[in-house]
Amino acid sequence: MPTDAERACFEAGIKFGSLYHQFAGTPVSPDSAESLGRAMEAAIENQPHCVDVDVAVRTDRIAAELDAQSADYTELTGRFMDVGMRIERAGVTVRTRMEMDGDYPTMQLVDVEPDGSNG
Amino acid sequence: MPTDAERACFEAGIKFGSLYHQFAGTPVSPDSAESLGRAMEAAIENQPHCVDVDVAVRTDRIAAELDAQSADYTELTGRFMDVGMRIERAGVTVRTRMEMDGDYPTMQLVDVEPDGSNG
Amino acid sequence: MPTDAERACFEAGIKFGSLYHQFAGTPVSPDSAESLGRAMEAAIENQPHCVDVDVAVRTDRIAAELDAQSADYTELTGRFMDVGMRIERAGVTVRTRMEMDGDYPTMQLVDVEPDGSNG
Amino acid sequence: MPTDAERACFEAGIKFGSLYHQFAGTPVSPDSAESLGRAMEAAIENQPHCVDVDVAVRTDRIAAELDAQSADYTELTGRFMDVGMRIERAGVTVRTRMEMDGDYPTMQLVDVEPDGSNG
Repeated sequence: MPTDAERACFEAGIKFGSLYHQFAGTPVSPDSAESLGRAMEAAIENQPHCVDVDVAVRTDRIAAELDAQSADYTELTGRFMDVGMRIERAGVTVRTRMEMDGDYPTMQLVDVEPDGSNG
Repeated sequence: MPTDAERACFEAGIKFGSLYHQFAGTPVSPDSAESLGRAMEAAIENQPHCVDVDVAVRTDRIAAELDAQSADYTELTGRFMDVGMRIERAGVTVRTRMEMDGDYPTMQLVDVEPDGSNG
Repeated sequence: MPTDAERACFEAGIKFGSLYHQFAGTPVSPDSAESLGRAMEAAIENQPHCVDVDVAVRTDRIAAELDAQSADYTELTGRFMDVGMRIERAGVTVRTRMEMDGDYPTMQLVDVEPDGSNG
Repeated sequence: MPTDAERACFEAGIKFGSLYHQFAGTPVSPDSAESLGRAMEAAIENQPHCVDVDVAVRTDRIAAELDAQSADYTELTGRFMDVGMRIERAGVTVRTRMEMDGDYPTMQLVDVEPDGSNG
């Protein structure tokens, strides 16, 4: 049988995959970034066991991309967002983060804490 | 050669298909509806020739759906949103609207006005 | 530090969330179901540590839905697919399955096996 | 009132926007490209008035992208697909095509033919 911690990590992964693939491809510009980040947070926080989602859409990187192309918006992809999440299930708290590993956005388990631990 | 009005109608259709299929499936609840609607508007307004997008996420219909199921959120689909758009291209203004035709959400051309017309 | 098993479960969750939210909302009918299932499998098997994905699009349930509505296609959602996956990471094998819990599609950890176990 | 040709062009745009935003962001590699292209065609051909969709996923461009990065798959976006469509509505046939305009994928109306024309 999977442990409570393993189940909590599975739930954390679901939230990350959901957030990424629901919103990747969305037209985004520096002006629309803030509203998109807020909607992503609120949408994924609806999912079970998802306590907190923090999305910072990287307007600096979007602006740099726009300087190098002809259109004045681009499509949301991993390098344009910093994401952190907190999932709680059956007393286990899982923290996750998305960060760039070179050119590839990786989703990372930051820590897994049973209830009452000092983490 | 397609006319300016035909090209404007094609652009209007692109925006509608984009909005629908980018955001269909997003987890949504009465509490997250407002932020999702605003993000949809701002995202699609980035696209070329798209002057105005108005999305009203139907929290009344979402609440009724939630009363009939076990989870406390659902997935965005056509019957949970009223959408109107205004597209302008080469002097032609196109207005569109999404509405239910029985159980099927249809996207409609409301009017197509050459510049300076009385519509 | 998260264990290898917890990391493998996190990866398994990512794949599930990705599959669901990339493809939810896709227009689907009994005739197009087979090609969609194959594409979903091949797409998600590209992701790291994802060894096997099995998607059975439920043409029986789609056909029943179409009998009750006016359009001759519908949108892909959880109740129209049975999904199983196998993820392997650092010697740990994780099996997952999507199934209906009443009216809500749930993603389940089936088992988590360290390398060489009898599982 | 919009003309039949304008309505057909609006329908053509909807199909293009749907295809692009449903599938943008899908994990893709040279090996999975063929199945993805077939599923995209079959999915969008379900939509009303959509007679034919042709998607060529550009494995040459995907392979070049993979040579320049660390991961062995990428995300589907406009420059990785050539798309053509034929829409028929109320006797009007519309042909569309997606092509690159420099670095930006543009969706184009190729021609609009009333029924019986020599187009």
